[in-house]
Amino acid sequence: MSFDKVAIIGLGLLGGSIGLAVAQDLPGTATAGYDADPAVRQRATERGLANTICDSAADAVADADLVILCVPVGAMGTAAAEIAAALKPGCVISDVGSSKQSVLTALSAALPEGTAIIPAHPVAGTEHSGPDAGFAALFRQRWCIITPPEGADPAQVEALSAFWSALGANVEVMDPRHHDLVLAVTSHLPHLIAYTIVGTASDLENVTRSEVIKYSAGGFRDFTRIAASDPTMWRDVFLNNKEAVLQMLQRFTEDLTALQRAIRVGDGEQLFDHFTRTRAIRRSIIEEGQDDDRPDFGRSDHERPA
Amino acid sequence: MSFDKVAIIGLGLLGGSIGLAVAQDLPGTATAGYDADPAVRQRATERGLANTICDSAADAVADADLVILCVPVGAMGTAAAEIAAALKPGCVISDVGSSKQSVLTALSAALPEGTAIIPAHPVAGTEHSGPDAGFAALFRQRWCIITPPEGADPAQVEALSAFWSALGANVEVMDPRHHDLVLAVTSHLPHLIAYTIVGTASDLENVTRSEVIKYSAGGFRDFTRIAASDPTMWRDVFLNNKEAVLQMLQRFTEDLTALQRAIRVGDGEQLFDHFTRTRAIRRSIIEEGQDDDRPDFGRSDHERPA
Repeated sequence: MSFDKVAIIGLGLLGGSIGLAVAQDLPGTATAGYDADPAVRQRATERGLANTICDSAADAVADADLVILCVPVGAMGTAAAEIAAALKPGCVISDVGSSKQSVLTALSAALPEGTAIIPAHPVAGTEHSGPDAGFAALFRQRWCIITPPEGADPAQVEALSAFWSALGANVEVMDPRHHDLVLAVTSHLPHLIAYTIVGTASDLENVTRSEVIKYSAGGFRDFTRIAASDPTMWRDVFLNNKEAVLQMLQRFTEDLTALQRAIRVGDGEQLFDHFTRTRAIRRSIIEEGQDDDRPDFGRSDHERPA
Repeated sequence: MSFDKVAIIGLGLLGGSIGLAVAQDLPGTATAGYDADPAVRQRATERGLANTICDSAADAVADADLVILCVPVGAMGTAAAEIAAALKPGCVISDVGSSKQSVLTALSAALPEGTAIIPAHPVAGTEHSGPDAGFAALFRQRWCIITPPEGADPAQVEALSAFWSALGANVEVMDPRHHDLVLAVTSHLPHLIAYTIVGTASDLENVTRSEVIKYSAGGFRDFTRIAASDPTMWRDVFLNNKEAVLQMLQRFTEDLTALQRAIRVGDGEQLFDHFTRTRAIRRSIIEEGQDDDRPDFGRSDHERPA
């Protein structure tokens, strides 16, 4: 099986990128898009984020074989309820949310029994959000994690995998609970920490905000990029993956306390050993093609104007 | 006054970049370089990191009007002692270290009374280190903070400012103590946190290291870049700017605890407000030209191969 028509609900960075990627990589597949914000629908029409931009979610999902919910994870239940009555029998409902247990629960509660719910999470994004942020190559060489519930139809899981592969992603099937643990450490905790330190830096009395901005190239600016991500999306992630995030945060705090103590007592050997160990992880990420080895990720530094 | 000959002690990322930048931007100025590691001297000769690569630090500083120590801040005293007897009378001794009070103390102790010591810190760098990492444009559009001690000769401070301006940097003069506080938050704390989280992620039992690497594009990979920085350099920074780092760490921990509590009790409003506030800082950094606004800093994502 494959999907002749895909409906995209929510036309921000992720939804827009899916629409553009389908147009490029699956030209035989029709897309219909919807966003709750009329201004976003207008912009989506101008950019051609889907073949048809509809004025209601129900219109967008009519006749769709695959519906992808691209809304914040806290809005999944409401979005699903809006389309429940309009779904084509046998269609697959999926999403792109960053927490998977909560999404499965919300969709199962909002949709009629027997609906094929197969949550997914493409691990890709940028710091930009909204209908202007999407681009067709967003998913290339990125992982998409599919988290089918028990009893999911293998043919439908296979079709969803093939869909994401066609957009350039590497697909992995994972248990939703394990997904939430893995992403808590590779994505949610980094975001929480980046949001924290950017807040800390802007609240100091003895260092001005303008100094923080001026001298940000010493490391701080990378955190500001992550801390510029969509606030609604991230609020929902933390509220919906609470247990795993708090667990990882506990581990992080223990490790930070140990390094803090090493600094306080002047234990250079412990610091050096720790800082050497972390280099290996970076090498592996470069080798696996998950980042760019050029200095500063290939920021335009080398061609800075004189 | 200006400098006819500049000696560079330490030929890694910073020292090498200074040599290349002088050759490009101050072609009338001679450079002599030295590194304690013979393999680095060999590579520096091949890359032409200075006009002359010497076999001793004393040879390199002979006749130099400006000596720049580009060694880890913990090695400043030793490096200064090595050149003390060979300095040309009236020459200026500077450095590129990330902590300024400790460097001033170490240089003052190691050099004869009356030596003109004017510490400086170009706030620029990449995650790469060693003699192959340097490039001429490293300092363009970056800030260089000069921290003259009380009683420094204004003409010499002016000459050092002019030198850094010629390499493309914006120069700011600052009290060493204030420098250490500002950099603790814009550079040292971000590095400590990045080193911590990368360590945390690689020590988990319930998430494998290969999963951490695979799904790093969700945010984690940015931290690994910072945590790939030179371990010796960073060990020394933390040991030499201990008070300011511990002070900033205390503030960070308080703020993290507040967000942790908001997650635990499900206070979405507090999370949303915090995450919205941090976006403004990012905008200012972009406006001030201290980072690249392209998604993912202009990583090669948009041209990812199919």
